[in-house]
Amino acid sequence: MPSHAETEKGSLAIVGLGPGRMEYITPRALKAIARAEYVLGHATYLVPLEPLLAGKTVISSSMGKEVDRAEQAIDLAKTHAVAIVSGGDAGVYGMAGIVLEVLEHSGVTIPVEVVPGVTAANAAASRVGSPLSGDFAVISLSDLLTPLEVIEQRLDAVFALGIPVVLYNPKSRGRPHNFALAVEHARKYLSEETPIGIVKNALREDEETIITTLGEIEEHIPAIDMHTTVIIGGKESRIWRMGDDVKGIITPRGYHRKYVY
Amino acid sequence: MPSHAETEKGSLAIVGLGPGRMEYITPRALKAIARAEYVLGHATYLVPLEPLLAGKTVISSSMGKEVDRAEQAIDLAKTHAVAIVSGGDAGVYGMAGIVLEVLEHSGVTIPVEVVPGVTAANAAASRVGSPLSGDFAVISLSDLLTPLEVIEQRLDAVFALGIPVVLYNPKSRGRPHNFALAVEHARKYLSEETPIGIVKNALREDEETIITTLGEIEEHIPAIDMHTTVIIGGKESRIWRMGDDVKGIITPRGYHRKYVY
Repeated sequence: MPSHAETEKGSLAIVGLGPGRMEYITPRALKAIARAEYVLGHATYLVPLEPLLAGKTVISSSMGKEVDRAEQAIDLAKTHAVAIVSGGDAGVYGMAGIVLEVLEHSGVTIPVEVVPGVTAANAAASRVGSPLSGDFAVISLSDLLTPLEVIEQRLDAVFALGIPVVLYNPKSRGRPHNFALAVEHARKYLSEETPIGIVKNALREDEETIITTLGEIEEHIPAIDMHTTVIIGGKESRIWRMGDDVKGIITPRGYHRKYVY
Repeated sequence: MPSHAETEKGSLAIVGLGPGRMEYITPRALKAIARAEYVLGHATYLVPLEPLLAGKTVISSSMGKEVDRAEQAIDLAKTHAVAIVSGGDAGVYGMAGIVLEVLEHSGVTIPVEVVPGVTAANAAASRVGSPLSGDFAVISLSDLLTPLEVIEQRLDAVFALGIPVVLYNPKSRGRPHNFALAVEHARKYLSEETPIGIVKNALREDEETIITTLGEIEEHIPAIDMHTTVIIGGKESRIWRMGDDVKGIITPRGYHRKYVY
């Protein structure tokens, strides 16, 4: 093992930054970045970190190229403290999976830490009441890495259960029609009154939220883009009002079956 | 509306604290607590906050009594700045749902903010590699508020899909057998090699992690308690090794279908 002494000096942190703004980044994530010599990540995620990056080598990348970025991070981490950052939680459609796959394949042995963050499901949910109070499913509509027929099968199963479903990657240039397809599947199992929360740029600048229903979703489809998370309520979800205002979505957990309030 | 002027002075923050340790609490959550006059929550969650609580009225409670706590918080929030805290994310099996239900029912109109946190699914996943890299489901095994037959139906559907499943509330004194029941359902659809991550007190003191498989889960059932989150891998999940050591679980997202690495 000729490189053993060398590899002992390196380390790798795979860091979830949450929605993006500093006030939603955990102190642990900041610490992992502070002690890194190299910080890798998508340019968008690195912008709010700029005050922390002085004196570090920053390697920013565009969307895609995750495999290259993982390989580069691991190569550097043999001998240096490296942090590779993801938006949201690093373990949910983030960099943790691919980095650990490439790391295992490389045979490199270094200390690795995955630092969790506030994932888009929770960030988006917090902006539209409490749509995920109980059981729920998380499904990406991106068919880049998962065949569309598998995604459709998953949508069918979870809509049939009537639990709320969080849709990541609902739409992008490459797949403009996947969201409309998901709506078709939802209509097979859920009523037109089913509430839907659309949250664009959750807890970031230019945040937009829309509360609508499955019956009226069509008019809002143009507003959905790759920075949007969509929460389709379950059978028990309902619109939450304060006075006459629609404020969001509540999925009751079942206290109403046990208590009078 | 005689109390209008009064209610304008109050506010309510429903705050997710993440796993518990200060280094996983977001600055936004700390800010919501800092500006509160009243802080309500389960005693366990309030302990790490103690340095922040000087000069505030702290109302700590034991497990259960969520409806009472919600009513008390709303009553105080008519005229005061109130923070009610949950472990993990406030919107996932936390206080957000019941507080918003009671708030709507009360007719009180006050500013409300839900502050998201790192939920147990993400905290636990980060300690056992990257088991939730793609789509997944979150299911509580507590039948206090959801009938057991509904839970079983959900388990069947998600195990049949072969996506990873995060089990909250896997076992407690009141329901010692629900986890074994979930295992029975998993065995109908998943192979004995399916990896399982057991994480007790994720990212807190006395954290314990176990990586095992569906075939060998029985011997670890006694270790599971109410502070444990269990992640049952999906059809594509596998054990992650570094050298000869079992380090965790990887659920590949599908890069291996597209790239050579």
